[in-house]
Amino acid sequence: MSERKNQHSAGDPRLARLSLNQKTTNRWSVAEAVDGCVRAGIPAIGLWREPVHDAGLERSAKLVRDAGLRVSSLCRGGFLTAADPAERQAALDDNRRAIDEAATLEAPCLVLVVGGLPAGSRDLPGARARVADAVAELAPYAGERGVRLALEPLHPMYCADRAVLSTLSQALDLAEQFPVDLVGVVVDTFHIWWDPTVWAGISRAGRRIASFQVCDFNLPIPADALLARGMMGDGVIEFRPFRVAVDDAGYAGDIEVEIFNADVWAADPDEVVATMIRRYVDLVL
Amino acid sequence: MSERKNQHSAGDPRLARLSLNQKTTNRWSVAEAVDGCVRAGIPAIGLWREPVHDAGLERSAKLVRDAGLRVSSLCRGGFLTAADPAERQAALDDNRRAIDEAATLEAPCLVLVVGGLPAGSRDLPGARARVADAVAELAPYAGERGVRLALEPLHPMYCADRAVLSTLSQALDLAEQFPVDLVGVVVDTFHIWWDPTVWAGISRAGRRIASFQVCDFNLPIPADALLARGMMGDGVIEFRPFRVAVDDAGYAGDIEVEIFNADVWAADPDEVVATMIRRYVDLVL
Repeated sequence: MSERKNQHSAGDPRLARLSLNQKTTNRWSVAEAVDGCVRAGIPAIGLWREPVHDAGLERSAKLVRDAGLRVSSLCRGGFLTAADPAERQAALDDNRRAIDEAATLEAPCLVLVVGGLPAGSRDLPGARARVADAVAELAPYAGERGVRLALEPLHPMYCADRAVLSTLSQALDLAEQFPVDLVGVVVDTFHIWWDPTVWAGISRAGRRIASFQVCDFNLPIPADALLARGMMGDGVIEFRPFRVAVDDAGYAGDIEVEIFNADVWAADPDEVVATMIRRYVDLVL
Repeated sequence: MSERKNQHSAGDPRLARLSLNQKTTNRWSVAEAVDGCVRAGIPAIGLWREPVHDAGLERSAKLVRDAGLRVSSLCRGGFLTAADPAERQAALDDNRRAIDEAATLEAPCLVLVVGGLPAGSRDLPGARARVADAVAELAPYAGERGVRLALEPLHPMYCADRAVLSTLSQALDLAEQFPVDLVGVVVDTFHIWWDPTVWAGISRAGRRIASFQVCDFNLPIPADALLARGMMGDGVIEFRPFRVAVDDAGYAGDIEVEIFNADVWAADPDEVVATMIRRYVDLVL
């Protein structure tokens, strides 16, 4: 890892922790995203399973390795709230495959979006309990493969349909039941910027921070609420206090830019990357 | 108050605490909503300032009084986050007028939607501090007029544009700086159903609960995110645990149904009220 990292020490030192999450340049394949990172001097990449499957797992690993990039995270596992036994088993099996993929890709963590309420259910405490049980089942498997599970609290507007894990405190309450190297949390500015307890939460998280993701919160919330994630500077979030708080908590890892946004996806990916670098330097560092 | 309340003791005892928030039947004037409540055997009404202005303040008060209804709340004051001194003064003046109106209407509380970030601002701590200062300025004025300020935490998806007060705990942290009779909180299922600490929050709230509002959280979130409020049973919320928790916390007041929803507003208001009563009895009680 340190050897590969050193290949980029000659690059712009301000970009030393920057990672392009693949979703930000959604139309790029793994190969294209890897090339785009190299062109732009970005030393790390956050991968998604679907494009990795499209490119082939081993080939994706080789592309990243040969380019001298770090993988900052693999997105994503999770969706662990099914009450139906067969669905639950299928979800656990899929998460074990995701852990295997993260190990092959040398991703330090697998991001978990834990899932919402099962269709027709209103049993939120039940869904939350099933997530805890599933994490307990998956954590040793991940630990044996050197992959850390990264619990991602999602904005409460996604509680019903994406993730019943809604705050950093709640994610920490769960993560802290496991060894720190096995289960961490994701600090994603989009999801937690509004939380009045967020600074205490980041401080409490400390070494539990497995991933730090940045993007802005845009208004109005678009028809597809998933696409409210914006380029830094286009929305309402003040980023620097988050970066400083995460640093102060002891996190020295990559800073991933992950944007789901129809306008960003429609733009030229190289231009998106150039804008991302400017905004990162101006607003996050 | 107790005399008027007794006029309805002959009605359906299951509806003894039910209040129609005027927004639920948005196209009805104050007079029409009052008539609708009387026809349906609903003993209380939550009023909004705009239709009250349309009908006239004194006339609205008389309409409600003559019909033997209680006013459960007046919606709404707030929008107290402006940094500009002139805008801030205008907001405080408008809130004093709202308090006066609540007193005239014999509304026990004025609901405060505290406001989002001022245009172009990303200073969330600053906006929150200005809300606290404004509440401190308004609370004595309200207390002298027998009106309680009801701080409403709004769903975090409205943090940027409607209310920087995002959780019940945060609302209580502020409310508890004032005498319990001067400043309370609103428990609205739509805004807080996702919160993993909500049961502790309701228990902590106790006599601070100034208003209990129910409506469902519908998916998908519509293009106008304000209209995601749904008829009980149409969304993801389990209501009875909230009603029981609020009761256990010592709240014995009205239960307001407040729905912002394009389909509900397009339907015949009398049918909406009939559905509301059925769902209230089946799902809330």
